[in-house]
Amino acid sequence: MLAAQGKTNISSSAIADIIGTNAWQIRKDFSYFGAFGKPGSGYDIDKLSKQISKILKINKGHKVALIGVGNLGSAVLAYKGFANYGFDLVVAFDSDPKRIGKKLGEVTIENISKINSLKKRNITVAILAVPESAAQQVTDTLVKTGIKGILNFSPCYLQVPKSVRIITIDIAIDLARLPYYIG
Amino acid sequence: MLAAQGKTNISSSAIADIIGTNAWQIRKDFSYFGAFGKPGSGYDIDKLSKQISKILKINKGHKVALIGVGNLGSAVLAYKGFANYGFDLVVAFDSDPKRIGKKLGEVTIENISKINSLKKRNITVAILAVPESAAQQVTDTLVKTGIKGILNFSPCYLQVPKSVRIITIDIAIDLARLPYYIG
Repeated sequence: MLAAQGKTNISSSAIADIIGTNAWQIRKDFSYFGAFGKPGSGYDIDKLSKQISKILKINKGHKVALIGVGNLGSAVLAYKGFANYGFDLVVAFDSDPKRIGKKLGEVTIENISKINSLKKRNITVAILAVPESAAQQVTDTLVKTGIKGILNFSPCYLQVPKSVRIITIDIAIDLARLPYYIG
Repeated sequence: MLAAQGKTNISSSAIADIIGTNAWQIRKDFSYFGAFGKPGSGYDIDKLSKQISKILKINKGHKVALIGVGNLGSAVLAYKGFANYGFDLVVAFDSDPKRIGKKLGEVTIENISKINSLKKRNITVAILAVPESAAQQVTDTLVKTGIKGILNFSPCYLQVPKSVRIITIDIAIDLARLPYYIG
Protein backbone atom coordinates (compact mmCIF):
# COMPACT_ATOMS: atom_id res chain seq x y z
CA MET A 1 0.00 0.00 0.00
CA LEU A 2 2.79 2.40 0.93
CA ALA A 3 4.80 1.44 -2.17
CA ALA A 4 1.72 2.18 -4.30
CA GLN A 5 1.64 5.63 -2.71
CA GLY A 6 5.22 6.17 -3.96
CA LYS A 7 6.88 5.81 -0.55
CA THR A 8 10.27 4.09 -0.38
CA ASN A 9 11.02 4.08 3.36
CA ILE A 10 9.09 3.76 6.59
CA SER A 11 10.07 4.03 10.25
CA SER A 12 9.24 1.38 12.82
CA SER A 13 7.01 3.88 14.64
CA ALA A 14 5.01 4.64 11.47
CA ILE A 15 4.46 0.88 10.91
CA ALA A 16 3.46 0.54 14.56
CA ASP A 17 0.88 3.33 14.21
CA ILE A 18 -0.71 1.66 11.17
CA ILE A 19 -1.07 -1.79 12.70
CA GLY A 20 -1.74 -0.69 16.27
CA THR A 21 1.34 -1.78 18.20
CA ASN A 22 4.50 -0.04 19.38
CA ALA A 23 7.77 0.66 17.56
CA TRP A 24 9.80 -1.48 19.94
CA GLN A 25 7.72 -4.56 19.09
CA ILE A 26 8.14 -3.92 15.36
CA ARG A 27 11.94 -3.62 15.66
CA LYS A 28 12.14 -6.71 17.84
CA ASP A 29 9.98 -8.83 15.51
CA PHE A 30 11.80 -7.73 12.35
CA SER A 31 15.19 -8.35 13.94
CA TYR A 32 14.29 -12.07 14.24
CA PHE A 33 14.60 -12.41 10.49
CA GLY A 34 17.50 -10.06 10.07
CA ALA A 35 15.71 -6.96 8.84
CA PHE A 36 17.26 -3.85 10.30
CA GLY A 37 16.08 -0.30 9.71
CA LYS A 38 18.52 2.57 9.58
CA PRO A 39 18.27 5.39 12.11
CA GLY A 40 16.74 8.39 10.37
CA SER A 41 15.51 6.60 7.23
CA GLY A 42 13.87 3.46 8.65
CA TYR A 43 13.14 0.38 6.55
CA ASP A 44 13.35 0.06 2.77
CA ILE A 45 9.70 -0.74 1.91
CA ASP A 46 10.41 -2.81 -1.22
CA LYS A 47 13.07 -4.92 0.47
CA LEU A 48 11.04 -5.42 3.62
CA SER A 49 7.94 -6.40 1.65
CA LYS A 50 9.90 -9.03 -0.31
CA GLN A 51 11.43 -10.46 2.86
CA ILE A 52 8.03 -10.77 4.53
CA SER A 53 6.52 -12.40 1.40
CA LYS A 54 9.29 -14.97 1.42
CA ILE A 55 8.85 -15.78 5.11
CA LEU A 56 5.08 -16.15 4.74
CA LYS A 57 5.65 -18.19 1.54
CA ILE A 58 3.25 -15.97 -0.39
CA ASN A 59 5.94 -15.22 -2.99
CA LYS A 60 5.36 -18.50 -4.84
CA GLY A 61 1.81 -17.90 -6.01
CA HIS A 62 -1.16 -20.05 -5.03
CA LYS A 63 -4.24 -20.99 -7.02
CA VAL A 64 -7.47 -20.52 -5.07
CA ALA A 65 -10.97 -21.96 -5.45
CA LEU A 66 -14.09 -20.31 -4.06
CA ILE A 67 -16.84 -22.63 -2.82
CA GLY A 68 -20.27 -20.97 -2.63
CA VAL A 69 -21.30 -17.90 -4.64
CA GLY A 70 -24.08 -16.39 -2.51
CA ASN A 71 -23.84 -12.83 -1.20
CA LEU A 72 -20.58 -13.41 0.63
CA GLY A 73 -19.03 -15.46 -2.19
CA SER A 74 -20.00 -12.75 -4.69
CA ALA A 75 -18.27 -10.17 -2.51
CA VAL A 76 -15.16 -12.40 -2.45
CA LEU A 77 -15.24 -12.66 -6.27
CA ALA A 78 -15.53 -8.89 -6.62
CA TYR A 79 -12.58 -8.33 -4.32
CA LYS A 80 -9.45 -7.09 -6.10
CA GLY A 81 -6.82 -7.51 -3.41
CA PHE A 82 -5.78 -11.17 -3.78
CA ALA A 83 -3.05 -10.63 -6.37
CA ASN A 84 -1.12 -8.46 -3.88
CA TYR A 85 -0.51 -11.60 -1.87
CA GLY A 86 0.25 -13.96 -4.74
CA PHE A 87 -3.23 -15.49 -4.90
CA ASP A 88 -5.04 -16.28 -8.13
CA LEU A 89 -8.74 -17.03 -7.71
CA VAL A 90 -9.19 -19.34 -10.70
CA VAL A 91 -12.53 -21.08 -10.16
CA ALA A 92 -15.78 -20.86 -8.20
CA PHE A 93 -18.26 -23.64 -7.41
CA ASP A 94 -21.93 -23.54 -6.51
CA SER A 95 -24.87 -25.96 -6.40
CA ASP A 96 -27.51 -23.49 -7.64
CA PRO A 97 -28.37 -24.16 -11.35
CA LYS A 98 -29.13 -20.44 -11.75
CA ARG A 99 -25.53 -19.58 -10.87
CA ILE A 100 -23.70 -22.44 -12.63
CA GLY A 101 -22.16 -21.37 -15.95
CA LYS A 102 -22.19 -17.64 -15.15
CA LYS A 103 -18.96 -15.74 -15.58
CA LEU A 104 -18.05 -13.13 -12.98
CA GLY A 105 -14.94 -11.22 -13.99
CA GLU A 106 -12.41 -13.85 -15.07
CA VAL A 107 -14.04 -16.66 -13.14
CA THR A 108 -16.73 -19.07 -14.36
CA ILE A 109 -19.01 -20.69 -11.79
CA GLU A 110 -18.88 -24.47 -12.07
CA ASN A 111 -21.15 -27.20 -10.71
CA ILE A 112 -20.04 -28.21 -7.21
CA SER A 113 -20.17 -31.84 -8.39
CA LYS A 114 -16.93 -31.04 -10.27
CA ILE A 115 -15.12 -30.14 -7.07
CA ASN A 116 -12.89 -33.23 -7.26
CA SER A 117 -11.11 -31.61 -10.23
CA LEU A 118 -9.17 -29.41 -7.78
CA LYS A 119 -6.30 -31.87 -7.40
CA LYS A 120 -5.75 -32.18 -11.16
CA ARG A 121 -5.82 -28.38 -11.42
CA ASN A 122 -3.18 -27.98 -8.74
CA ILE A 123 -5.42 -25.92 -6.46
CA THR A 124 -4.37 -26.18 -2.82
CA VAL A 125 -6.28 -23.32 -1.18
CA ALA A 126 -10.06 -22.92 -0.90
CA ILE A 127 -12.31 -20.15 0.38
CA LEU A 128 -15.44 -21.63 1.95
CA ALA A 129 -18.55 -19.42 1.71
CA VAL A 130 -21.35 -22.00 1.89
CA PRO A 131 -24.24 -22.07 4.40
CA GLU A 132 -23.32 -23.43 7.82
CA SER A 133 -25.51 -26.51 7.22
CA ALA A 134 -23.34 -27.60 4.26
CA ALA A 135 -19.95 -26.50 5.62
CA GLN A 136 -18.69 -29.75 7.20
CA GLN A 137 -19.77 -31.91 4.26
CA VAL A 138 -18.08 -29.64 1.71
CA THR A 139 -14.99 -29.52 3.94
CA ASP A 140 -14.80 -33.33 3.97
CA THR A 141 -14.95 -33.34 0.16
CA LEU A 142 -12.25 -30.64 -0.05
CA VAL A 143 -10.00 -32.70 2.23
CA LYS A 144 -10.46 -35.71 -0.07
CA THR A 145 -9.36 -33.67 -3.11
CA GLY A 146 -6.10 -32.92 -1.30
CA ILE A 147 -6.74 -29.31 -0.31
CA LYS A 148 -4.07 -27.96 2.06
CA GLY A 149 -5.61 -24.76 3.39
CA ILE A 150 -9.15 -23.48 3.91
CA LEU A 151 -10.33 -19.96 4.70
CA ASN A 152 -13.72 -20.63 6.31
CA PHE A 153 -16.45 -17.98 6.49
CA SER A 154 -19.08 -20.29 8.00
CA PRO A 155 -19.52 -19.41 11.66
CA CYS A 156 -18.80 -22.92 12.90
CA TYR A 157 -15.96 -25.12 14.04
CA LEU A 158 -15.03 -27.49 11.22
CA GLN A 159 -13.14 -30.72 11.72
CA VAL A 160 -10.17 -31.41 9.47
CA PRO A 161 -7.17 -33.73 9.70
CA LYS A 162 -3.94 -32.28 11.15
CA SER A 163 -2.47 -32.06 7.64
CA VAL A 164 -5.02 -29.41 6.60
CA ARG A 165 -4.84 -25.84 7.91
CA ILE A 166 -8.11 -24.04 8.44
CA ILE A 167 -8.63 -20.38 9.36
CA THR A 168 -12.14 -19.38 10.38
CA ILE A 169 -13.37 -15.81 9.97
CA ASP A 170 -16.31 -15.07 12.25
CA ILE A 171 -17.32 -11.43 11.79
CA ALA A 172 -19.09 -11.43 15.18
CA ILE A 173 -15.78 -12.32 16.85
CA ASP A 174 -14.00 -9.53 14.96
CA LEU A 175 -16.75 -7.14 16.03
CA ALA A 176 -16.40 -8.41 19.62
CA ARG A 177 -12.87 -6.98 19.74
CA LEU A 178 -14.27 -3.41 19.68
CA PRO A 179 -16.25 -2.99 22.95
CA TYR A 180 -13.14 -3.50 25.08
CA TYR A 181 -11.76 -0.26 23.67
CA ILE A 182 -14.96 1.74 23.50
CA GLY A 183 -16.45 0.82 26.92
CA MET B 1 -20.79 -23.08 20.96
CA LEU B 2 -19.82 -25.79 23.45
CA ALA B 3 -22.61 -24.74 25.83
CA ALA B 4 -25.10 -25.05 22.95
CA GLN B 5 -23.83 -28.61 22.45
CA GLY B 6 -24.77 -29.34 26.07
CA LYS B 7 -21.22 -29.41 27.42
CA THR B 8 -20.56 -27.98 30.89
CA ASN B 9 -16.78 -28.33 31.24
CA ILE B 10 -13.73 -28.13 29.02
CA SER B 11 -10.03 -28.76 29.59
CA SER B 12 -7.31 -26.27 28.69
CA SER B 13 -5.94 -28.70 26.09
CA ALA B 14 -9.37 -29.05 24.39
CA ILE B 15 -9.64 -25.23 24.18
CA ALA B 16 -6.08 -25.09 22.84
CA ASP B 17 -6.94 -27.62 20.09
CA ILE B 18 -9.95 -25.58 18.97
CA ILE B 19 -8.16 -22.24 18.72
CA GLY B 20 -4.79 -23.56 17.59
CA THR B 21 -2.47 -22.92 20.52
CA ASN B 22 -1.16 -25.00 23.42
CA ALA B 23 -2.70 -25.82 26.79
CA TRP B 24 0.03 -24.04 28.73
CA GLN B 25 -0.74 -20.75 26.98
CA ILE B 26 -4.46 -21.13 27.74
CA ARG B 27 -3.80 -21.77 31.44
CA LYS B 28 -1.36 -18.87 31.66
CA ASP B 29 -3.69 -16.41 29.91
CA PHE B 30 -6.76 -17.40 31.96
CA SER B 31 -4.77 -17.19 35.18
CA TYR B 32 -4.26 -13.44 34.55
CA PHE B 33 -7.92 -12.83 35.26
CA GLY B 34 -8.26 -15.37 38.01
CA ALA B 35 -9.94 -18.21 36.13
CA PHE B 36 -8.61 -21.55 37.29
CA GLY B 37 -9.61 -24.91 35.90
CA LYS B 38 -9.76 -27.97 38.11
CA PRO B 39 -7.53 -30.96 37.40
CA GLY B 40 -9.68 -33.67 35.86
CA SER B 41 -12.73 -31.52 35.09
CA GLY B 42 -11.21 -28.39 33.56
CA TYR B 43 -13.08 -25.09 33.28
CA ASP B 44 -16.76 -24.48 33.92
CA ILE B 45 -17.91 -23.33 30.45
CA ASP B 46 -20.77 -21.10 31.62
CA LYS B 47 -18.67 -19.32 34.25
CA LEU B 48 -15.67 -18.91 31.93
CA SER B 49 -17.84 -17.54 29.13
CA LYS B 50 -19.39 -14.94 31.49
CA GLN B 51 -15.96 -13.88 32.79
CA ILE B 52 -14.61 -13.42 29.25
CA SER B 53 -17.72 -11.44 28.20
CA LYS B 54 -17.23 -9.12 31.15
CA ILE B 55 -13.54 -8.56 30.41
CA LEU B 56 -14.25 -7.85 26.73
CA LYS B 57 -17.18 -5.61 27.78
CA ILE B 58 -19.50 -7.47 25.42
CA ASN B 59 -21.90 -8.25 28.30
CA LYS B 60 -23.51 -4.78 28.18
CA GLY B 61 -25.05 -4.98 24.72
CA HIS B 62 -24.17 -2.68 21.84
CA LYS B 63 -26.35 -1.33 19.05
CA VAL B 64 -24.76 -1.68 15.63
CA ALA B 65 -25.34 0.07 12.30
CA LEU B 66 -24.41 -1.40 8.93
CA ILE B 67 -23.24 1.03 6.25
CA GLY B 68 -23.51 -0.35 2.70
CA VAL B 69 -25.87 -3.15 1.65
CA GLY B 70 -24.15 -4.58 -1.44
CA ASN B 71 -23.13 -8.24 -1.59
CA LEU B 72 -20.95 -8.08 1.50
CA GLY B 73 -23.43 -5.95 3.46
CA SER B 74 -26.23 -8.37 2.56
CA ALA B 75 -24.12 -11.25 3.86
CA VAL B 76 -23.59 -9.31 7.10
CA LEU B 77 -27.35 -8.73 7.43
CA ALA B 78 -28.06 -12.43 6.88
CA TYR B 79 -25.54 -13.42 9.54
CA LYS B 80 -27.13 -14.77 12.73
CA GLY B 81 -24.17 -14.78 15.10
CA PHE B 82 -24.12 -11.21 16.44
CA ALA B 83 -26.50 -11.78 19.38
CA ASN B 84 -24.03 -14.29 20.87
CA TYR B 85 -21.70 -11.37 21.51
CA GLY B 86 -24.27 -8.88 22.75
CA PHE B 87 -24.63 -7.04 19.43
CA ASP B 88 -27.93 -5.85 18.02
CA LEU B 89 -27.79 -4.82 14.37
CA VAL B 90 -30.60 -2.25 14.40
CA VAL B 91 -30.23 -0.30 11.16
CA ALA B 92 -28.61 -0.40 7.72
CA PHE B 93 -27.83 2.51 5.40
CA ASP B 94 -27.29 2.66 1.65
CA SER B 95 -27.26 5.30 -1.07
CA ASP B 96 -28.97 3.16 -3.77
CA PRO B 97 -32.65 4.20 -4.18
CA LYS B 98 -33.47 0.61 -5.19
CA ARG B 99 -32.31 -0.63 -1.77
CA ILE B 100 -33.63 2.19 0.45
CA GLY B 101 -36.88 1.27 2.24
CA LYS B 102 -36.42 -2.49 1.84
CA LYS B 103 -36.70 -4.62 4.94
CA LEU B 104 -34.25 -7.50 5.37
CA GLY B 105 -35.12 -9.59 8.42
CA GLU B 106 -35.74 -7.09 11.24
CA VAL B 107 -33.72 -4.32 9.63
CA THR B 108 -34.98 -1.60 7.29
CA ILE B 109 -32.50 -0.01 4.89
CA GLU B 110 -32.44 3.77 5.32
CA ASN B 111 -31.06 6.55 3.14
CA ILE B 112 -27.41 7.19 3.96
CA SER B 113 -28.27 10.90 4.24
CA LYS B 114 -29.91 9.96 7.58
CA ILE B 115 -26.63 8.67 8.98
CA ASN B 116 -26.35 11.58 11.44
CA SER B 117 -29.26 10.04 13.38
CA LEU B 118 -26.83 7.50 14.88
CA LYS B 119 -25.97 9.69 17.88
CA LYS B 120 -29.63 10.24 18.82
CA ARG B 121 -30.23 6.49 18.49
CA ASN B 122 -27.34 5.68 20.81
CA ILE B 123 -25.48 3.62 18.20
CA THR B 124 -21.75 3.51 18.90
CA VAL B 125 -20.54 0.70 16.62
CA ALA B 126 -20.66 0.59 12.81
CA ILE B 127 -19.84 -2.07 10.24
CA LEU B 128 -18.46 -0.47 7.09
CA ALA B 129 -19.17 -2.36 3.84
CA VAL B 130 -19.03 0.42 1.25
CA PRO B 131 -16.82 0.54 -1.87
CA GLU B 132 -13.22 1.56 -1.20
CA SER B 133 -13.75 4.84 -3.07
CA ALA B 134 -16.38 5.95 -0.52
CA ALA B 135 -14.82 4.49 2.61
CA GLN B 136 -12.86 7.49 3.95
CA GLN B 137 -15.69 9.95 3.34
CA VAL B 138 -18.25 7.73 5.10
CA THR B 139 -15.75 7.19 7.94
CA ASP B 140 -15.37 10.95 8.41
CA THR B 141 -19.16 11.27 8.65
CA LEU B 142 -19.34 8.38 11.14
CA VAL B 143 -16.70 10.05 13.30
CA LYS B 144 -18.78 13.28 13.31
CA THR B 145 -21.86 11.38 14.53
CA GLY B 146 -19.83 10.22 17.53
CA ILE B 147 -19.21 6.62 16.53
CA LYS B 148 -16.72 4.87 18.85
CA GLY B 149 -15.83 1.71 16.95
CA ILE B 150 -15.75 0.69 13.27
CA LEU B 151 -15.39 -2.76 11.74
CA ASN B 152 -14.05 -1.93 8.28
CA PHE B 153 -14.36 -4.34 5.34
CA SER B 154 -12.90 -1.94 2.75
CA PRO B 155 -9.38 -3.05 1.87
CA CYS B 156 -7.79 0.27 2.75
CA TYR B 157 -6.20 2.12 5.63
CA LEU B 158 -8.72 4.61 7.00
CA GLN B 159 -7.75 7.63 9.07
CA VAL B 160 -9.67 8.23 12.29
CA PRO B 161 -8.95 10.27 15.42
CA LYS B 162 -7.33 8.45 18.35
CA SER B 163 -10.68 8.37 20.17
CA VAL B 164 -12.19 6.03 17.54
CA ARG B 165 -11.17 2.37 17.32
CA ILE B 166 -11.11 0.81 13.88
CA ILE B 167 -10.57 -2.85 13.00
CA THR B 168 -9.98 -3.63 9.33
CA ILE B 169 -10.80 -7.03 7.88
CA ASP B 170 -8.88 -7.69 4.68
CA ILE B 171 -9.73 -11.20 3.45
CA ALA B 172 -6.54 -11.32 1.36
CA ILE B 173 -4.48 -10.83 4.54
CA ASP B 174 -6.42 -13.60 6.28
CA LEU B 175 -5.83 -15.83 3.26
CA ALA B 176 -2.14 -14.88 3.34
CA ARG B 177 -1.81 -16.60 6.72
CA LEU B 178 -2.29 -20.02 5.06
CA PRO B 179 0.73 -20.52 2.74
CA TYR B 180 3.18 -20.44 5.65
CA TYR B 181 1.62 -23.66 6.91
CA ILE B 182 0.99 -25.37 3.58
CA GLY B 183 4.30 -24.57 1.85
